[in-house]
Amino acid sequence: MSARAGKVVCDLTVSLDGYAAGPGQSEERPFGDDGGDGSGATLHAWMFEDADENRAEIDLLGSARAFVMGRNMFGPVRGPWDRPWNGWWGDEPPFHAPVFVLTHHAREPQPMAGGTTFHFVTDGIGAALERARAAAGDGDVAVAGGATTVNQYLAAGLIEELRLHVVPLTLGAGPRLFDGVPPLELAQVASRPARRVTHLTYEVLG
Amino acid sequence: MSARAGKVVCDLTVSLDGYAAGPGQSEERPFGDDGGDGSGATLHAWMFEDADENRAEIDLLGSARAFVMGRNMFGPVRGPWDRPWNGWWGDEPPFHAPVFVLTHHAREPQPMAGGTTFHFVTDGIGAALERARAAAGDGDVAVAGGATTVNQYLAAGLIEELRLHVVPLTLGAGPRLFDGVPPLELAQVASRPARRVTHLTYEVLG
Repeated sequence: MSARAGKVVCDLTVSLDGYAAGPGQSEERPFGDDGGDGSGATLHAWMFEDADENRAEIDLLGSARAFVMGRNMFGPVRGPWDRPWNGWWGDEPPFHAPVFVLTHHAREPQPMAGGTTFHFVTDGIGAALERARAAAGDGDVAVAGGATTVNQYLAAGLIEELRLHVVPLTLGAGPRLFDGVPPLELAQVASRPARRVTHLTYEVLG
Repeated sequence: MSARAGKVVCDLTVSLDGYAAGPGQSEERPFGDDGGDGSGATLHAWMFEDADENRAEIDLLGSARAFVMGRNMFGPVRGPWDRPWNGWWGDEPPFHAPVFVLTHHAREPQPMAGGTTFHFVTDGIGAALERARAAAGDGDVAVAGGATTVNQYLAAGLIEELRLHVVPLTLGAGPRLFDGVPPLELAQVASRPARRVTHLTYEVLG
């Protein structure tokens, strides 16, 4: 018997009004009208510009042993995989673990430098999570985003720990965390203010 | 010359998904489907059940020298004031100061025990704020709610400090903070975790 010790977690950076990106996303502006240049840099300044201050949260972010993500988070290609696309992150993505990408279009696994392999899952969120759990062993599985994918997993009751990184701006539109998710009961696990972000960690009770 | 030292502040208790109340509000259930009995007790447990722990925030809440509120926060009576209604708070409301209630129907001021007087303002949010400012002298004016009223003041750029009390549950529907408000830039002023709430204070930059 090998009881799984790992959890299903979700880290998401959101504006104070709960948006994980602004409206009008495109290949050139993957985060749309995000209060900056559309690259997500404004929302994620806590990670890139204030890395020292937020080291604990950044380390935790990278500690999952497998990831699940939606196709929009993986890239802008829609429909069949008719042009080369290996994610937004260059040759060595920051996951260093298997990443299960939700899609309706089958594709062979894509190994990358640094230990990341993108796997393409066509049979739904439950199947993707099962494959990620198997790959993670006793480590954590992270639902990496975007908000639409996170909402599907929350609605299905499949996320155990939610770690929100709340940034002091509002976006007013875009993909919104909790949109369409039935009411949840949560327990506060931790809450830590940093200079330009507040880290809120919740256990999802049901 | 008497420069005003006071600020226009807003204290609002919200669910993690930004709702200040649930859907289906009624006289019997002023907070609607709020995760509890509709009385708002679930959202406001930090204030009533955990008062010692949250003393600083509760004291600040009561420190404004004048308040503005929407008619829905004042009561369930719609249209003309055709039946007696002096608010949800009994004979001695917790404001101890003038409260300016937004309404389309004129009504004489209503003095209450303990220093609260309800004034009824029929000429809009700007006029209500001006009257509250005059009444507050060099003290703070608080926009007390509900979310719809707060959103009107935020959209008009009239709130200087936003103090959110974020409760670990989601409601999924209801009047939502920031709904319809154009994107805002904020600065984190303070952030304090308590046992069943996180207090987030922001300066509204524009």
